[in-house]
Amino acid sequence: MNSLIGATGLVVRNIPRADAGLIEQLGRYGVATVHEAQGRKGLLGTALRPIQQGVGISGSAVTVLVAPGDNWMFHVAVEQCQPGDILVVAPSSPCTDGYFGDLLATSLKARGVRGLVIDAGIRDSQTLRDMGFAVWSSAINAQGTVKEVLGSVNLPLLCGGQLINPGDVMVADDDGVVVVRHNDVPQVAEATRKRADLEEQKRLRLANGELGLDIYNMRQRLAEKGLRYVDSLEELDH
Amino acid sequence: MNSLIGATGLVVRNIPRADAGLIEQLGRYGVATVHEAQGRKGLLGTALRPIQQGVGISGSAVTVLVAPGDNWMFHVAVEQCQPGDILVVAPSSPCTDGYFGDLLATSLKARGVRGLVIDAGIRDSQTLRDMGFAVWSSAINAQGTVKEVLGSVNLPLLCGGQLINPGDVMVADDDGVVVVRHNDVPQVAEATRKRADLEEQKRLRLANGELGLDIYNMRQRLAEKGLRYVDSLEELDH
Amino acid sequence: MNSLIGATGLVVRNIPRADAGLIEQLGRYGVATVHEAQGRKGLLGTALRPIQQGVGISGSAVTVLVAPGDNWMFHVAVEQCQPGDILVVAPSSPCTDGYFGDLLATSLKARGVRGLVIDAGIRDSQTLRDMGFAVWSSAINAQGTVKEVLGSVNLPLLCGGQLINPGDVMVADDDGVVVVRHNDVPQVAEATRKRADLEEQKRLRLANGELGLDIYNMRQRLAEKGLRYVDSLEELDH
Amino acid sequence: MNSLIGATGLVVRNIPRADAGLIEQLGRYGVATVHEAQGRKGLLGTALRPIQQGVGISGSAVTVLVAPGDNWMFHVAVEQCQPGDILVVAPSSPCTDGYFGDLLATSLKARGVRGLVIDAGIRDSQTLRDMGFAVWSSAINAQGTVKEVLGSVNLPLLCGGQLINPGDVMVADDDGVVVVRHNDVPQVAEATRKRADLEEQKRLRLANGELGLDIYNMRQRLAEKGLRYVDSLEELDH
Amino acid sequence: MNSLIGATGLVVRNIPRADAGLIEQLGRYGVATVHEAQGRKGLLGTALRPIQQGVGISGSAVTVLVAPGDNWMFHVAVEQCQPGDILVVAPSSPCTDGYFGDLLATSLKARGVRGLVIDAGIRDSQTLRDMGFAVWSSAINAQGTVKEVLGSVNLPLLCGGQLINPGDVMVADDDGVVVVRHNDVPQVAEATRKRADLEEQKRLRLANGELGLDIYNMRQRLAEKGLRYVDSLEELDH
Amino acid sequence: MNSLIGATGLVVRNIPRADAGLIEQLGRYGVATVHEAQGRKGLLGTALRPIQQGVGISGSAVTVLVAPGDNWMFHVAVEQCQPGDILVVAPSSPCTDGYFGDLLATSLKARGVRGLVIDAGIRDSQTLRDMGFAVWSSAINAQGTVKEVLGSVNLPLLCGGQLINPGDVMVADDDGVVVVRHNDVPQVAEATRKRADLEEQKRLRLANGELGLDIYNMRQRLAEKGLRYVDSLEELDH
Repeated sequence: MNSLIGATGLVVRNIPRADAGLIEQLGRYGVATVHEAQGRKGLLGTALRPIQQGVGISGSAVTVLVAPGDNWMFHVAVEQCQPGDILVVAPSSPCTDGYFGDLLATSLKARGVRGLVIDAGIRDSQTLRDMGFAVWSSAINAQGTVKEVLGSVNLPLLCGGQLINPGDVMVADDDGVVVVRHNDVPQVAEATRKRADLEEQKRLRLANGELGLDIYNMRQRLAEKGLRYVDSLEELDH
Repeated sequence: MNSLIGATGLVVRNIPRADAGLIEQLGRYGVATVHEAQGRKGLLGTALRPIQQGVGISGSAVTVLVAPGDNWMFHVAVEQCQPGDILVVAPSSPCTDGYFGDLLATSLKARGVRGLVIDAGIRDSQTLRDMGFAVWSSAINAQGTVKEVLGSVNLPLLCGGQLINPGDVMVADDDGVVVVRHNDVPQVAEATRKRADLEEQKRLRLANGELGLDIYNMRQRLAEKGLRYVDSLEELDH
Repeated sequence: MNSLIGATGLVVRNIPRADAGLIEQLGRYGVATVHEAQGRKGLLGTALRPIQQGVGISGSAVTVLVAPGDNWMFHVAVEQCQPGDILVVAPSSPCTDGYFGDLLATSLKARGVRGLVIDAGIRDSQTLRDMGFAVWSSAINAQGTVKEVLGSVNLPLLCGGQLINPGDVMVADDDGVVVVRHNDVPQVAEATRKRADLEEQKRLRLANGELGLDIYNMRQRLAEKGLRYVDSLEELDH
Repeated sequence: MNSLIGATGLVVRNIPRADAGLIEQLGRYGVATVHEAQGRKGLLGTALRPIQQGVGISGSAVTVLVAPGDNWMFHVAVEQCQPGDILVVAPSSPCTDGYFGDLLATSLKARGVRGLVIDAGIRDSQTLRDMGFAVWSSAINAQGTVKEVLGSVNLPLLCGGQLINPGDVMVADDDGVVVVRHNDVPQVAEATRKRADLEEQKRLRLANGELGLDIYNMRQRLAEKGLRYVDSLEELDH
Repeated sequence: MNSLIGATGLVVRNIPRADAGLIEQLGRYGVATVHEAQGRKGLLGTALRPIQQGVGISGSAVTVLVAPGDNWMFHVAVEQCQPGDILVVAPSSPCTDGYFGDLLATSLKARGVRGLVIDAGIRDSQTLRDMGFAVWSSAINAQGTVKEVLGSVNLPLLCGGQLINPGDVMVADDDGVVVVRHNDVPQVAEATRKRADLEEQKRLRLANGELGLDIYNMRQRLAEKGLRYVDSLEELDH
Repeated sequence: MNSLIGATGLVVRNIPRADAGLIEQLGRYGVATVHEAQGRKGLLGTALRPIQQGVGISGSAVTVLVAPGDNWMFHVAVEQCQPGDILVVAPSSPCTDGYFGDLLATSLKARGVRGLVIDAGIRDSQTLRDMGFAVWSSAINAQGTVKEVLGSVNLPLLCGGQLINPGDVMVADDDGVVVVRHNDVPQVAEATRKRADLEEQKRLRLANGELGLDIYNMRQRLAEKGLRYVDSLEELDH
């Protein structure tokens, strides 16, 4: 499958999609918790920022490889989308052009797509927010694109420094975007639930003023590593 | 006129200003549509970001060249402003200092100026938002400036990687900033109106679920370029 | 004291804290005015951005040096905090990991800490905003950290390109973050008050349409430097 | 295999290695030609720069995932290397620390390793050049690392925005670094040879003053796209 | 002429070229001196770096606007070049692709072109250095380009944040690139010569140990501004 | 002393200088070894790059704070320099202007100054290399500066993210720049010598093919942390 990364001129019609309930569950827990629960893997780079605030989504990745300055493949991709999908787009070489605006968002929304993750630029940002179409992008840019060069739809691709396979589950919120492998969804969902429960218990104890030093039994290990307490800076300074 | 770019020690009192109705019309359609309608020219670089959200303005450029770390020319420029103008400011070498704050904004607002586009820093950002004075800048920075070195007012200058002539029309919104040449305003306003109408029609069809592939008749051209559809990734992988 | 910058394995229990009334006063005037009033010193770099909008705080610095990708020292630092403090954190080499999330914020809030200034990443950004825990950081990143390597608490450190001593007063708002030396707090508070009063008077005059050129008596000095007024660009162009 | 990306605590002893003759052949043709010949895939990001000039290498990838600020896994990896290998290293979150210096280079050289590709920092850069140990890195930084946290050796990883599998062939020169999948090596080597021959023929014709416009028969297609020639700028300007 | 910036689909055959002797003279004095002598105007941004060291050139600008990821216009431009020209290339939106390699360099060299200034990427960097073809670029990148979209040749364009007109004179060396307007060449050449002579005299005095403080008579002005000398840091510290 | 950081209008005439023999010794061992030997403190940020290759220097810091775009204080500083000094320069807000060229270098060389460390731009880079005047800077830029605003000489300042006191010892080579506190020089010199000896012994063993895993006794600790060896990737993949 590795050799397909970066290939062009291809559209794959059928992709696996994970259980809708589990996908929703992952979205509820959010990026930071899912990322921890699956062993700190799959986080897309911090250059991908939400254009809105306070919105979290999850869905199946429909992947789109585009040429620099060319958004032709978006139109091909729309037809391959189903309700609950998230479009994941990467240019074949770095580009900040505004590949995506309110017309394409209207089309995707009509098909039930939940949002867009793109390692490139978008435009019509205020209209997209007004429409409630969620976007994570690496640029906001009114610069439009042409329709001359083929890319691909639903091949594995690299987006935000991560490998994304079509059908992998994307989770995105104010903290960024994380990918969960299609086959890992059930275990990760369960691990995420457990971790969230655990965090909830700790939150209550911390809110009551208990210290992490005590909850996590850190004092002895810190001492073994050589941590030293002094009463004032003057003690140290000579 | 080329030789005046970068010149200092000069203030030009009279600049051309385009028709107020056309300027307002351009502002209503917004940066992305105007930029497309004038043939994808004149977009300022993506480093110029709005400090507020959901605000769009348009107006005649009063240009100000400033020395790095020196905002003296702002005070000279205020006197040259008229209601409906937009101050367009660039430093003679890259600088992120906070050239502009609420006092200058108060002064500009008193003269009817609509906003500021600056390829440098501003400060008092929260107060500026509270005042409703619109700003696009490349930095937010409390670092102040001195008043020792001359620049110029109303000479052509380069701002955000674009040539701006005094009296050119600036359009700015959440997507960024675009410049329309003074002489091009009537044609660009008309072309923008037509494009916006066309987009509105397409939006309705896309919202109804029609595909861009069909609306724009793309299927045959994609096939001619060699686009191939397969049923699944497994078909391709060996 | 210089030799303690960058030292690890140490926690200092007692730090000086400035007068609570003066600290609050500095926070009320905000970063830009305080920075000007103390002679344009102590501004942290513009990479440190607020994760929220419209919030200004001030407080005594509790300093924390952490290893890259390791947030162990946060837990040690919590115990050293008092109501009104601000945690100031820097990694020993540049790192954008998400060192801090809602659990640590819960713990700090329980001790009365007002906010966090960190030259690294944080996560759970939406929850932090919902909790009303104020943060200035150089990244938002779900990438978590380990707990293996010692740093230090309450030694002088470099954060955002500035030296911060434990007990120095931090002021932070939408414009950024500034540090006021512990010993300078009384004079700076007074100078800030005076400057703010002066600005208020100028603001009224500017709002009434008076020009800075006249208020500040700039016309003669500009002429001496050689500023020349012309009626139009055509005069200059040949 | 996807699920192994980012896993830690594992070392894989045996990896496939491509034919030594083909590997050398790819190295001779260089990064730009190999990248073109395999369909413009597999180029690592431009942040990875050579620390030397005029050196080109190729070899089998031994992959190393390291924690931020922690180079422990280098020592584990050395034992897994064979003559002709290239170490490919990525941190689990972005880090510019100096992971690698002349001691590790001495150890790798003793095992016949040809060079290092690292999406992080190195140090002792002058000594590395003097030793003739070739390095492509994203930073030069004297900041050292600790040995506390496990990573992995010879799992697939993401380096420079590309997926690298252990045993894939790396080609690196002054233009950057490209990866060729292990299974694709024979076809890519052949395609590269053909392309290089073709380029050589074109080079001779171009050196003789023939125009690409004619060699590639571009004139008609340019005219069809609407390219227009005018005699001078004045013709266009009004 | 302003309205032609960014236009596409056009090639201008005849451009003005300045006197060959004056062009060579500007090249001999180098970028820093020319930039000073013409009043500190026309310097291209520092992102444009030489790929070689110790080479300085000057020549008439043949300007080329290219689409992102598309180098078709290079082939059109070659035909418009004459001995002594310098190709000045900018993409219509930011792009780091490798637009230019040794084949195009061979073709340009055959026509007597002196070098390339490009606000985008190039490749085959080692071969270009070996050929002695001088290049200033903003990236080195093996990523190739397509030939599908028209740009323009010999229209005014913005490159490195400066307006470049066809026939303007470019001067480039290790310090960067500066543009001199075609009409300004005689005066700037003369001013450069005078400045260089003056600098030579100062260099001799400084080499003999005279201080700039005395040569430039700075002591009194520094005192008037308030500069104060103290014997030691301890005097100031309390 | 903290309150003096950022102060302007002051020149301190006398600064402490460390023992010349020890300073030279630190320079011989280089940045990476000195940085390790003093406990990984004092490294300036990686933005400060040498403009030459293969040159290492050490010397006493003469510190210069300059205004953005204003190099007046250089001339004041020259008079305060002695043979063996290194000029350490930082702008009061970030600036990439070319503050320093061959004339100032001639003046400093005449006084025996060994080099320049500047968190801003320099120009005449080729001439500086030809003169053998060593420079570490964050930019190369022909953009000149004015002489209007006071800074300071020989006050403590922040350069490259580190506090530098006048008289601290700077060590600079191809890896970057490190500062050693004046009072720490004897101990750091001794610790550096010991570390270098130790490294030399290890280098010999590693060159003979011994593994770091065995020399440093890492195998057991790795096993305790849970490192697992497998024979092939296929074992892990299901």
